Amino acid sequence: MIYLDHNATTAPAPEVIAAMLPVFSSGWANSSSQHGPGQQAKRTLGAARATVARVLGCKPVEVIFTSGATEANHLAVRGLLAASAPERQRVVFGSVEHAGHLKLAHALREAGTVVDLIPVHPDGTLDLAAAAALIGPDVALVSLMAANNETGVLMPLAEVAALTQAAGVRLHVDATQFIGKLPFVFSSCGADAVSLSAHKINGPKGVGALLLRQGVPLQPQTLGSQERARRGGTENLPGIVGLAAALERLGDLSTEAQRIAHLRDTLEAGLRQALPDTHIWSHKVARLPGTSYVRFGQLSADVVLQRLDRLEVAASSGAACSSGGSQASHVLTAMAVPEEQALAAVRFSLGASTSMDDIQTLLNTLPPLLAPLLHEECATAP
Amino acid sequence: MIYLDHNATTAPAPEVIAAMLPVFSSGWANSSSQHGPGQQAKRTLGAARATVARVLGCKPVEVIFTSGATEANHLAVRGLLAASAPERQRVVFGSVEHAGHLKLAHALREAGTVVDLIPVHPDGTLDLAAAAALIGPDVALVSLMAANNETGVLMPLAEVAALTQAAGVRLHVDATQFIGKLPFVFSSCGADAVSLSAHKINGPKGVGALLLRQGVPLQPQTLGSQERARRGGTENLPGIVGLAAALERLGDLSTEAQRIAHLRDTLEAGLRQALPDTHIWSHKVARLPGTSYVRFGQLSADVVLQRLDRLEVAASSGAACSSGGSQASHVLTAMAVPEEQALAAVRFSLGASTSMDDIQTLLNTLPPLLAPLLHEECATAP
Repeated sequence: MIYLDHNATTAPAPEVIAAMLPVFSSGWANSSSQHGPGQQAKRTLGAARATVARVLGCKPVEVIFTSGATEANHLAVRGLLAASAPERQRVVFGSVEHAGHLKLAHALREAGTVVDLIPVHPDGTLDLAAAAALIGPDVALVSLMAANNETGVLMPLAEVAALTQAAGVRLHVDATQFIGKLPFVFSSCGADAVSLSAHKINGPKGVGALLLRQGVPLQPQTLGSQERARRGGTENLPGIVGLAAALERLGDLSTEAQRIAHLRDTLEAGLRQALPDTHIWSHKVARLPGTSYVRFGQLSADVVLQRLDRLEVAASSGAACSSGGSQASHVLTAMAVPEEQALAAVRFSLGASTSMDDIQTLLNTLPPLLAPLLHEECATAP
Repeated sequence: MIYLDHNATTAPAPEVIAAMLPVFSSGWANSSSQHGPGQQAKRTLGAARATVARVLGCKPVEVIFTSGATEANHLAVRGLLAASAPERQRVVFGSVEHAGHLKLAHALREAGTVVDLIPVHPDGTLDLAAAAALIGPDVALVSLMAANNETGVLMPLAEVAALTQAAGVRLHVDATQFIGKLPFVFSSCGADAVSLSAHKINGPKGVGALLLRQGVPLQPQTLGSQERARRGGTENLPGIVGLAAALERLGDLSTEAQRIAHLRDTLEAGLRQALPDTHIWSHKVARLPGTSYVRFGQLSADVVLQRLDRLEVAASSGAACSSGGSQASHVLTAMAVPEEQALAAVRFSLGASTSMDDIQTLLNTLPPLLAPLLHEECATAP
C-alpha cells in the first residue's frame, strides 16, 4: 500500500501509541479527582499541555483541548462571536474553508448572522483586496484556514492579521492542514485563535486543540469545569498525551518540508512528462510541501482512483469528507474551474511515511494505465 | 491501591485496550475516504455501531457517536430545543443533574430560555408531583439523569416518560452513571434521547454517544458530514471501537449488580457497626448497586479523604468535577442537607474491580483511624 492521502488522516506514530499506552493501562484516573491517582493524572495533563505549548509557541494557559479541529473551529467561531460587542456581529469566512466549516457559516446565516465569504483567485490564492473590503468595524471575526486541504495553497495570514488588527477584528485560523507540515509559532502568527487536530500529524483521532490568545474573551460552548471552564467534559487524557507526543516528534519541520516538497516535485514532473495532459492546480503559488492536486485531461476522478486502487495507491478525489459523491469540489468551483474539469480532480497528499520509492513506483505504474484512457478520451472528444 | 471512585472514572479493560490497538496501529484510515483502507475503516465503524446498538437495545441508525457524555448532553438539550415547535420553548431539568449539565441549564436561562428544575425529596428521590406540575404543553424537553452520580439514587424514568409522552414533550436521559451498572434497553426506556460515556464503563476517555430515537428531529450542534450530518468531525474510530468493546464485555449485568450491591451493603453495615456516627444518604431508596454516599458524624470530608489517602484508598467528596473546593454539593443542598453535614460527604463508588478483600481491608483499617477523631468531635461539640 502506497498511502498518498495524508491530508485526510495519518497513521499514529509508534512513539505516539507508546506514549498513550501507559495512560490507558495505569494513568487512567480522572484528573479532576483529588486522590493520588487523580493528582497523578492532573500532572500528566499539565505536562502534556506544557509540551503542546512549547512546540506551538504559546503559553500553557492558551491551550484548550478539544475533541478535534471541527470542535475547535466551532468553539472559536461561536465563542468569539458570542463574546463580541453588539456592534460587531458580522462574520467573515474564507470561501474555500473545509466543507464542515462552511456548514457552520451557513448555519450562522440561517440563524440571522451576516456572513461574508472572501473569494479566491483562479490559482487558489486569497483575494486580499476583497478581504480588505470585507473587514470593517462591524465585523466580529474572520475565520480563515492557514492552508487549503485540497490545493494546499497557503493563505496570507500575516496580511490578513494586519487587516484584522487594524480593524479591531478577531482572527481565527484553522491550521489543521498547516501545523506539522510547516513551521508554526502561535505567538507570532497574528491570530487570536488557532485550531489543530492530532490525527493529521500522526497523532490519535478524537483529539485536537484550540489555541486562544490570553485575554481574548470567548464564550464556552460545551460547559463544565474542565479546561478552565472553557471546555467541559472529562479530559481525554490518553488522546491529549498522544497529541503532545505527536507534536514533540515533529522535530525540524523545514528539513522534512524540503524532503517532501522534493518528492512532490518529482511526482508532478514525472506525471507531466509521462502524461502531457496532466494539469496541476495552484502549482505556481505557495503551497503545502506535500499536496498535489491534479487532473489528467478530463478523465473522471473515479476512473483514476479505480486504477490507483488496483495499484494499491491510496489517494483522494478532493476532501475525504465530501468524496464519494459526484459533486464538484467547492474549492475548485470557487477557483472558477469548470465542472467537467473539477470532476477530474485527484489529490495526492504526501507525508512523513512517503518515500522516493513510493513516488517512483507510482510514476512507473500509473501512466501506463492512464495513457490509453487519455488517448481514447482525446479520440472520442467532439 | 483500593479504587472506590468508579463513578468518577474506571480503568480501561484489557479487552478494550486490545480492541483499540489494531485501530491505532493499522486500521487508522479515515472512514470517509473512498480507498481500500478508508472503506475498511468504514466497516470497522459500522461493526462498532452495530455492537453498541445490540447491547443497548437500539437501532444502529439511532447511535450518534460523540466525544463523551457532556457533548452528548449538550447536543440533546440544544439540539432538541432548537428543533422544537415555537410554542414549546420551556425546558425542564432535574435539580440534581451533573454540575456541568446544570451549567448548561444556567446558560440557557442567561440566553432567555425559561428553565425549570424538578426538585428532589430529602431522600434524593425525584419529586414526581412537582415534575407533573412542570411538564406542560409549552415544554420542549425534559432533561433528567437516570441515576445520580453522588447518591446513586435512581430516577423514576418510566413515570417521567409517561408524563412527557402524555404532554408531547421530548425526554432526554443522561444515563452516564446508569449504563453498565444496571440493565438498560433504549427501545423500551421511554426516552427520546439517551447520553452515555465510555470511560464510566471501563472504556476509553474521549468518547461517548447520544442515542436518538429514529424520527425525532434534532438540530446538529457540531456541523459536518459524519454521523449522518448529526455530528461533524472525523470519527474517533479507536475510541468508538473501545466503547463498543466496553459495552460488549458487560455481560449479565444483573448478576454483577447483585455482587456489587452485596459488597456495598457489607461496607455500609460494617461502617455503621464500627462507627455508629455513620450516616448514609438515600440508603432506603432504590440506588445504583455500587454507590455509597456517607458522612461520619460531621467529620470534614477533607479529613476523611486524607486518612483514606494514607490507606491508599481512592474515594471522592461528591462529584469529582466539583471536588477540591469547600463548596457543599449541590445535590445534598437540593436534598435540604445542612451545609456542615454536606461538607462531611464522602462517596465510595464500587465497580467491576472491587472485591470483598477491598471492602474487608477498608473495614479493618478506616474505622480505627476515624474513631478517635469522632470521639474528639463529640467531646468538643458545643
